[in-house]
Amino acid sequence: MILVFAGGVGAAKFLEGLVQVVPPEEIVAVVNTGDDFVLHGLMIAPDLDIVTCTLADLIDREQGWGIAGDTTACMEWLGKLGAPQWFKLGDRDLALHIQRTALLREGWTLSHVADHLRQALGVKVRIVPMSNDPAPTHIVTAAGEMHFERYFVERRAQDDVQDVRLHAAGPAQPTPELLDLIAQADHILLAPSNPIVSIGPILALPGVRRALQTTAVPIVAISPIVGGAAIKGPAAPLMRAMGYEVSAFGIAQIYADLIDTLVIDQLDQALMNSIKALGLQVVVTDTIMRDSAAKARLATVALQG
Amino acid sequence: MILVFAGGVGAAKFLEGLVQVVPPEEIVAVVNTGDDFVLHGLMIAPDLDIVTCTLADLIDREQGWGIAGDTTACMEWLGKLGAPQWFKLGDRDLALHIQRTALLREGWTLSHVADHLRQALGVKVRIVPMSNDPAPTHIVTAAGEMHFERYFVERRAQDDVQDVRLHAAGPAQPTPELLDLIAQADHILLAPSNPIVSIGPILALPGVRRALQTTAVPIVAISPIVGGAAIKGPAAPLMRAMGYEVSAFGIAQIYADLIDTLVIDQLDQALMNSIKALGLQVVVTDTIMRDSAAKARLATVALQG
Repeated sequence: MILVFAGGVGAAKFLEGLVQVVPPEEIVAVVNTGDDFVLHGLMIAPDLDIVTCTLADLIDREQGWGIAGDTTACMEWLGKLGAPQWFKLGDRDLALHIQRTALLREGWTLSHVADHLRQALGVKVRIVPMSNDPAPTHIVTAAGEMHFERYFVERRAQDDVQDVRLHAAGPAQPTPELLDLIAQADHILLAPSNPIVSIGPILALPGVRRALQTTAVPIVAISPIVGGAAIKGPAAPLMRAMGYEVSAFGIAQIYADLIDTLVIDQLDQALMNSIKALGLQVVVTDTIMRDSAAKARLATVALQG
Repeated sequence: MILVFAGGVGAAKFLEGLVQVVPPEEIVAVVNTGDDFVLHGLMIAPDLDIVTCTLADLIDREQGWGIAGDTTACMEWLGKLGAPQWFKLGDRDLALHIQRTALLREGWTLSHVADHLRQALGVKVRIVPMSNDPAPTHIVTAAGEMHFERYFVERRAQDDVQDVRLHAAGPAQPTPELLDLIAQADHILLAPSNPIVSIGPILALPGVRRALQTTAVPIVAISPIVGGAAIKGPAAPLMRAMGYEVSAFGIAQIYADLIDTLVIDQLDQALMNSIKALGLQVVVTDTIMRDSAAKARLATVALQG
């Protein structure tokens, strides 16, 4: 069983590579829920939906989120009725949020809901939310403390970041199966996701770091930073705010006490020795997942790492 | 001020006539909420929406409910995700349910929400839900007791009706302004709505019958039964189950202790004397609201009644 720590777009693409090289039934993605929030009374789970809809081949690949070909009739009418408009929700996309919210209100756990939704959409990879508790990521900025999605989407990451508060609603427990999954995994991979706000919230759950440090299997991370920049999303300002260099070396520092191997891009080859000096093995490859073959190739490298 | 007791389609059409002959700002519609129910975790309010969307000229006039030209992308995806499909909700229509549910969860009263939604859609008639408490109408049938919408929509009124249970969730209070509105009204009209499940739930609220019996202004009802049949909806089996003749005379019996005048259709002229024998005045006219002029004419007659 291959356990993948996952955020949104980068992780979803990486998982699309992985399912080409191993049977999807052998893959479990544990997904960040720090971005989850309530909007229009609906429980929105951005990373769970990006991973699920990408693996179901429904994702809008231009945007990286939402459902391809979706319409926005409901959203337009929500606007007429005075509802906030900063987070776009398509009509098909809304069905996921409505059904998730309805099932949670009926008493289902988020794990149960996530499993139901991925099965309903024909996804064979098992998708496990990191926690069944609310664990919002807050960004502390000069303009105040706000939920990650407000910082990133509503305010377009324009505010200077002072701090990141994980699990800002209070203590969150890992989803019940997570520590067992870590103990049972044959491979553990940290997908090329934002280390601060995607992988960070999973690692911050009680017992997760310890479980990773005690497992015998190698742990491999793929750097989401290539040539000193994030491929997508706000990793750069968040890493900088937390005191890290925005580079594959910064990624290595963040994960140094947890992983065995870091996969970095050939553009970052010059950083290999300084990363090795942190006690890590380094694999250099082309990490840009520009097509299906590139995704499969990166997955193969990560499994060998 | 003209106070209209209202259900769904019949009341909405009658109100369309009324706004042609008096300023809409002088009209208050108190609307049945006995049909309200929760579906997909969303608070659906069929009669409030029919009245609001008809007066906003948004209603799908073929169906009598829903929004004209609406699409069903979200509903189709809810189906893929295992959600029930028996109650059709359009994408634009869903915006009303989502926003209503969100505002209620934020602590707004249903009165406040109804007022916000009708204003957002440009409706000048004041729309007041009968109660801010849950007051579901249940139908007791040979197949069991069920919410009115399940009886009417899901099971297409196929079950033999044994009884009707109003306010089946327990005691409900009238919306705070309702008794004052009755005391202050210059005209009180009972729209041509189902007397058992549309007007009945409003009349069954504590204090409403007494307020109607003590007000000095004339109370006029328009019969929704013409030629022994309901123009729309399940009035016939429900009246029969409650021991009433399905006729304008049956309507007169139901309202006899409350109203002064019953407006009946010319098709039912033969019933005039037996209705008068109940102590009511009778106005005979064409009550079929086939076009805009017919609606206005009926409203004028009702105001004169």
